[in-house]
Amino acid sequence: MILCDIGNTYLHFYNGSKVWKSRVEQLQTIFTDTLYYISVNTAHTQALLKVCPHAQDLAPFLILKSKYEGLGVDRKAACLGLQTKSAVVIDAGSAISVDVMDSGMHLGGVLLPGLKAYHKAYSQISKALNYPINARVNLETLPQSTQEALSYGALKSVLLLLKDLIGDQKAYFTGGDGKFLATFFKQGIYHELLVFEGMQSVISRI
Amino acid sequence: MILCDIGNTYLHFYNGSKVWKSRVEQLQTIFTDTLYYISVNTAHTQALLKVCPHAQDLAPFLILKSKYEGLGVDRKAACLGLQTKSAVVIDAGSAISVDVMDSGMHLGGVLLPGLKAYHKAYSQISKALNYPINARVNLETLPQSTQEALSYGALKSVLLLLKDLIGDQKAYFTGGDGKFLATFFKQGIYHELLVFEGMQSVISRI
Repeated sequence: MILCDIGNTYLHFYNGSKVWKSRVEQLQTIFTDTLYYISVNTAHTQALLKVCPHAQDLAPFLILKSKYEGLGVDRKAACLGLQTKSAVVIDAGSAISVDVMDSGMHLGGVLLPGLKAYHKAYSQISKALNYPINARVNLETLPQSTQEALSYGALKSVLLLLKDLIGDQKAYFTGGDGKFLATFFKQGIYHELLVFEGMQSVISRI
Repeated sequence: MILCDIGNTYLHFYNGSKVWKSRVEQLQTIFTDTLYYISVNTAHTQALLKVCPHAQDLAPFLILKSKYEGLGVDRKAACLGLQTKSAVVIDAGSAISVDVMDSGMHLGGVLLPGLKAYHKAYSQISKALNYPINARVNLETLPQSTQEALSYGALKSVLLLLKDLIGDQKAYFTGGDGKFLATFFKQGIYHELLVFEGMQSVISRI
């Protein structure tokens, strides 16, 4: 059995032991009897169904108690993947989603651009701002150059909002920048498989 | 005499009593004996020089004590426009710049995307995130929809970083979103003419 989490940049796969990712244009025929997926990108879903026609959508089975309208399936899966039922879930990919869970109930959530999206945003404002975000920028002293200034702006504004939302709750990080962001929080736990574990938790209901 | 602040989105003009702005494609012949400008966009400068060939660049005269490498002329002008020599200067336009001044010395600065740039960044991540930033989003309760989630993320992360940088210092806001952002700070002062006053302060040296 293979699980696939279809995002806006990558398709992430998990076969129970290994995680790998593919861009949509690099997809090759997938040989498996059973593939379950969730998707936030319909064009990428179509591409997956071309290389794996019997792939099955798990979205209808991902049921999360929430008043939030339009919660993405990847965010639902990550919240359902929590072992502990109360925590903040941060999925830091193309976008950064922050979802607050209390006793298995989703209380609401926040979206931020992903760190690469900050770089793109700055570079589209002006060529003079076209520097990659330096994740090692010193956050303790005032920046003294353009690259420092925009790296500090992106990273510190994200961290201050995360700190504000997390407070003294547990925080589970996943996604491409999750490992890095988790290092800023003493109660931060990086969990690469959170979305897949959420998907696994509902397969028994099918 | 006319002053012109050439930005990445608009050219802003000031004739000593009135401020007006123009997109580069809307520029018309300017009838004046004297026009001084500063610019962060060379293509827009060329467009201004076509409609006003004798326009004169003030950049060489904007001298600010700073260790910061590559500080934009608009940021220099805004800092030089301060009457009080110690304050935080926030110019909220295409980008949001935050510069810290102490006794006439520039101590460093930070850059963030402007509020419109957040909207563009979200919309480029996914069509599902293509909502304008709602500046009136409730920042006291957790968002319960996509538009609330991304408006809250952009606005609150910007405000938390501004709060962190401003502390108990005076804060002067300028730029298109300056008036709005100033309302969140009890020591926030909106000053539309800050950049122009900085330009005016050096004209006597020419």
